[in-house]
Amino acid sequence: MNKSSFGSHFTVTTWGESHGKALGAVIDGCPAGLSLSEEDIQKFLDRRKPGQSRYTTARKEGDLVEILSGVFEGKTTGTPISLMVRNTDQRSRDYGNIAYSYRPGHADYTFDAKYGFRDYRGGGRSSGRETIGRVASGAVASKLLASLGISFCTYTKSIGPVSIENFSPEEINNNAFYMPDADAAAKAGTYLEKCMKNLDSAGGVIECRITGVPAGLGNPVFEKLDAMLSQAVMSIGAVKAVEIGDGIQVAHMNGSEDNDGFTIKDNMINKTSNHAGGIMGGISDGSEIILRAYIKPTPSISQPQQTVTSQGRQISLEIHGRHDPVIVPRAVVVVESMCALAITDALFANMTSRLDKIQKFYSK
Amino acid sequence: MNKSSFGSHFTVTTWGESHGKALGAVIDGCPAGLSLSEEDIQKFLDRRKPGQSRYTTARKEGDLVEILSGVFEGKTTGTPISLMVRNTDQRSRDYGNIAYSYRPGHADYTFDAKYGFRDYRGGGRSSGRETIGRVASGAVASKLLASLGISFCTYTKSIGPVSIENFSPEEINNNAFYMPDADAAAKAGTYLEKCMKNLDSAGGVIECRITGVPAGLGNPVFEKLDAMLSQAVMSIGAVKAVEIGDGIQVAHMNGSEDNDGFTIKDNMINKTSNHAGGIMGGISDGSEIILRAYIKPTPSISQPQQTVTSQGRQISLEIHGRHDPVIVPRAVVVVESMCALAITDALFANMTSRLDKIQKFYSK
Amino acid sequence: MNKSSFGSHFTVTTWGESHGKALGAVIDGCPAGLSLSEEDIQKFLDRRKPGQSRYTTARKEGDLVEILSGVFEGKTTGTPISLMVRNTDQRSRDYGNIAYSYRPGHADYTFDAKYGFRDYRGGGRSSGRETIGRVASGAVASKLLASLGISFCTYTKSIGPVSIENFSPEEINNNAFYMPDADAAAKAGTYLEKCMKNLDSAGGVIECRITGVPAGLGNPVFEKLDAMLSQAVMSIGAVKAVEIGDGIQVAHMNGSEDNDGFTIKDNMINKTSNHAGGIMGGISDGSEIILRAYIKPTPSISQPQQTVTSQGRQISLEIHGRHDPVIVPRAVVVVESMCALAITDALFANMTSRLDKIQKFYSK
Amino acid sequence: MNKSSFGSHFTVTTWGESHGKALGAVIDGCPAGLSLSEEDIQKFLDRRKPGQSRYTTARKEGDLVEILSGVFEGKTTGTPISLMVRNTDQRSRDYGNIAYSYRPGHADYTFDAKYGFRDYRGGGRSSGRETIGRVASGAVASKLLASLGISFCTYTKSIGPVSIENFSPEEINNNAFYMPDADAAAKAGTYLEKCMKNLDSAGGVIECRITGVPAGLGNPVFEKLDAMLSQAVMSIGAVKAVEIGDGIQVAHMNGSEDNDGFTIKDNMINKTSNHAGGIMGGISDGSEIILRAYIKPTPSISQPQQTVTSQGRQISLEIHGRHDPVIVPRAVVVVESMCALAITDALFANMTSRLDKIQKFYSK
Repeated sequence: MNKSSFGSHFTVTTWGESHGKALGAVIDGCPAGLSLSEEDIQKFLDRRKPGQSRYTTARKEGDLVEILSGVFEGKTTGTPISLMVRNTDQRSRDYGNIAYSYRPGHADYTFDAKYGFRDYRGGGRSSGRETIGRVASGAVASKLLASLGISFCTYTKSIGPVSIENFSPEEINNNAFYMPDADAAAKAGTYLEKCMKNLDSAGGVIECRITGVPAGLGNPVFEKLDAMLSQAVMSIGAVKAVEIGDGIQVAHMNGSEDNDGFTIKDNMINKTSNHAGGIMGGISDGSEIILRAYIKPTPSISQPQQTVTSQGRQISLEIHGRHDPVIVPRAVVVVESMCALAITDALFANMTSRLDKIQKFYSK
Repeated sequence: MNKSSFGSHFTVTTWGESHGKALGAVIDGCPAGLSLSEEDIQKFLDRRKPGQSRYTTARKEGDLVEILSGVFEGKTTGTPISLMVRNTDQRSRDYGNIAYSYRPGHADYTFDAKYGFRDYRGGGRSSGRETIGRVASGAVASKLLASLGISFCTYTKSIGPVSIENFSPEEINNNAFYMPDADAAAKAGTYLEKCMKNLDSAGGVIECRITGVPAGLGNPVFEKLDAMLSQAVMSIGAVKAVEIGDGIQVAHMNGSEDNDGFTIKDNMINKTSNHAGGIMGGISDGSEIILRAYIKPTPSISQPQQTVTSQGRQISLEIHGRHDPVIVPRAVVVVESMCALAITDALFANMTSRLDKIQKFYSK
Repeated sequence: MNKSSFGSHFTVTTWGESHGKALGAVIDGCPAGLSLSEEDIQKFLDRRKPGQSRYTTARKEGDLVEILSGVFEGKTTGTPISLMVRNTDQRSRDYGNIAYSYRPGHADYTFDAKYGFRDYRGGGRSSGRETIGRVASGAVASKLLASLGISFCTYTKSIGPVSIENFSPEEINNNAFYMPDADAAAKAGTYLEKCMKNLDSAGGVIECRITGVPAGLGNPVFEKLDAMLSQAVMSIGAVKAVEIGDGIQVAHMNGSEDNDGFTIKDNMINKTSNHAGGIMGGISDGSEIILRAYIKPTPSISQPQQTVTSQGRQISLEIHGRHDPVIVPRAVVVVESMCALAITDALFANMTSRLDKIQKFYSK
Repeated sequence: MNKSSFGSHFTVTTWGESHGKALGAVIDGCPAGLSLSEEDIQKFLDRRKPGQSRYTTARKEGDLVEILSGVFEGKTTGTPISLMVRNTDQRSRDYGNIAYSYRPGHADYTFDAKYGFRDYRGGGRSSGRETIGRVASGAVASKLLASLGISFCTYTKSIGPVSIENFSPEEINNNAFYMPDADAAAKAGTYLEKCMKNLDSAGGVIECRITGVPAGLGNPVFEKLDAMLSQAVMSIGAVKAVEIGDGIQVAHMNGSEDNDGFTIKDNMINKTSNHAGGIMGGISDGSEIILRAYIKPTPSISQPQQTVTSQGRQISLEIHGRHDPVIVPRAVVVVESMCALAITDALFANMTSRLDKIQKFYSK
């Protein structure tokens, strides 16, 4: 597997730096015949756009996507789809001490350790802008999955100490935080005001629910569906924990509580509960898949922080400029995109699990 | 990537069913020149052995490993290492209603959904015995890593409601639960007695600390070191959540709390804290790597449970026989093994990150 | 991809040394529901067995295969199939100067260069016995392909200067050389007698014809079907050239000769010729796939040869013992096996090339 | 492995159609610290440019490459390098019957069979323009290999019946055919004139010699160096056969002729001949690597050809327009590029073959 790729069947390779010429992705393995336009992708990209509220950075990013290959007469051709977003805001500027300082909570030090030097402009490859390629690809995967009856509901579950207490799906797109609870969104706003006043930042939790996934996706051992979802979501910059279904709670539960029983409903086998979050033994069971990602607070804060330069000088660093006090709302679509990529890949991988189905596929 | 393999450079492929002839693993990509004996591997396998205390199953499993290839005159040759453990306890028996019932909390239903039928003997490929191949391979990876100064400390952090309160590393191997706290171990024992009396089971948390990992391992995007560790650990049967460093706590922290500062100590760059758990931007920073896995309670319990048969008949199922009331202690070495595999793979992948080092490698 | 694996979907990993404990393969990705017995595999292994005629080595090798996992109640389960052949003839012996000499035409020198030392017993991993894992896996792939109407006809086209002049498929298994021409087989026998008298060896050409492959397998760029077949066949020890269809002849042809026209026959699109050997632009066209492998003469000869020891001493080396004067006949089933693996992998990969077919696959 | 990617360590993914917006490649796994400019790549692209002589198409293609990511301050950063060439000549035109006819010798029919429809403009993804991504990537690999002392000499060995009889390396870039023999080049010109007069086309042979490759590259089984080179070169559109060293000749040789002996020269181990073409048992032996690719005649010819439309109507088709009567000269740099990619990948893969070297790499 190449290092900047995700997926063995529906393979996405992303590229691009925060302040380079452009960012993008190549999707290899998208089947022929999917209707696809730049608008389909733009809708997803707009969900991760900054500048939509006072809690996200004011940077004006058009982030207009261009499809460079793989689509002909409005449909995918089965060959690689190349997607590109030009960086419009590349004016040369003075990066000052940022260029040689190791910002706490950032990847500056580790990039230098690995590569010997780094593109320090806006974080280079470790910038949040890296997710543009993920989201553009996620849009394609989502459209494909929608055509198979698979849909996503992704939202902010908490910001700092403020958790949702109600779940109104129609509310999700009505507030700046993508929270399904208007009251919680209001409280989160108040909390973030306080953070900003303190020159500080906050984290939070994102939940993704996936409906319509057929039973049978995932593999029994290393490529368990939950394992692949975990890699997918943990590979997002600020994620520090991932859980499936009851997740961390299972450590305190008894087997009699945690086990999901089975019953017959309308002549179909159904689970009596869903503690497992839709995955048993690494394989989807046909019920809703539930995943949560724990996001750390934005590392760029304006408080003075103790750090060192690449030359080993101790300094106090204040990071000014455009920085979201919380990453969570913009990361919602990133989590959804990564889940869409993992599910698509598992869906394709599963097509060769039974000989009778292969025989039927190839019979005339 | 093949479905039953882990790692792109140090690649492990496992095989075998619970009650089949044998289980094993093939390691492809182990470098030549590592001293390796069956004893090295047996030591690891013995750590996952049942029957060591009254809280683990009494099944007598020799689980003696045989090295079939890849070692010559006591050293690895660089070619595939084939490891096998024969199943000694394969007597034909009556699986009764287990063969056609979907046990709650098990993968019976999802295996049938995926493959159309399944090897129902003892869970087949979804049995905990599948981890034999992981642990045998983990033993090899650990020995290799030890030769590079990388070591592991893995232990049980909690069982049900009982968490460790002290950390005495020398205590870990002194109790049946691999807990670094004798008092907690005693309490855990009492708690499990109660579970067993209730015909119930318990879960828990395993923590793995990895020391000596050089800075620079991992990749900036999809193959972040934490993402690969997450896939590795989440691919273990009963794991439902994984966290790195402060993990789920970061969602409630402020940036000023979560950020790790840098300082100079003995002319070396050092972090002033380790909230990140040793990984920044997906790349190791040279400090201790800290990971936690949340393990669900053993799904096999003797209480009557509501379920259905594969023919769609509703039944009440009681599972009798040899079952650990808690999986956690036996899973400690499995978590350690999977971390060892992920670290080894990242260590190898990193060798081509800088041209100057490649030039030096190939210079005469 | 791991180094000792072939195939991304139907993945085969082989292991084992010539004089180690055993050799084998793990097949990962074989679909559930294929009837499979040890006899199915043994039939293939017997085709590569030595000792069938005076032109192959007299070494008594049972080469009895054991299925260790992945088959339950006579059918594949969809989980990894582990196949093993124990080496029965491992008596300790004196390898004498072979252990420290670089045999001309063998991999002794390059193994030492790569790994620093080598298992010198019978060539270790570079022995022809390495193909046991390939052939055992090829037997499984062949059975699977047969269930889809795909069949192979593989035979010796020439040995040394003796080429077939007639093609009688029923003759192939009637002579020691797997030649479809009894006269040519007789002449080849005479030629080999002469080689043996001269303490020398011979090469030859193997042809593989594959019928029933549906149009559409293979990918447009790097994973062209002919490219994957080439890797597959060129990875066999003694193969030095591979050609598809008219192969090397095309370099001397004009476009008007080489192009295959199309016509309509029985309402089906048909080619008017098959210079392309069944593959156009890297994708199968539904006609017969034709491939040829050029095999070098057995490198082990009893004539004195000039070489050096690993310590750099110049010596004259005579290799005595059991060596086929020609490898070609025993390699026929190896070429067929590798083609079967490549075709199976392409067949599986192709299942996700069209959205409408994926939708139909997942529709209830 | 994704379908449009080559290489496991230095991974190249190409994208783009003949008449789409652009073509390009993403290189993932290029180490940090390589000096790289657009000029470095342009030099390679110019070698595959048409319009350099009357024997290549007159189409004006600037084919100017743009580096979009992965290079900062003139050096590679270790992150993905995105390369793009805009198509400048995309004017809408009438593709007439080409759009619905299956051109003999082209991939039109097989693309329809695989994907259900195709981008018919100029061959879409199966056009020779697809090689732009290969050559741009090959330029980067070549520069990297040059920094390690590895160099290539690639040239036309024959066109139709005209083979080189002398080898003057300095002549290669002096004639339109990249032949190392001025007389042969003149004769090839005369021959092609005749082909063009006959509305026909010609094929030929390309030879690639690689010097400076250290001993030890390649793997013993499926990923033999010659196997990977074969896949690499056979994946080029018009290649129908590949041979290494003495190649097809070995089938007629005796072991005593084909075996390369060893001797000591200047205290170094040397081969007394190089029939093997620099690779023994799949592993480089330190001597020159020699490979030949057999190229078919250009399939687009102006003679009337019998074919069918996608609707199954029989027609006579004449292909007019800009078409080289021979592909060989423009394919020289493509063969070299693919060899460079395969060698680079093997070079990186080999770095983990010995534990002592890994220990040295990671020692401080």
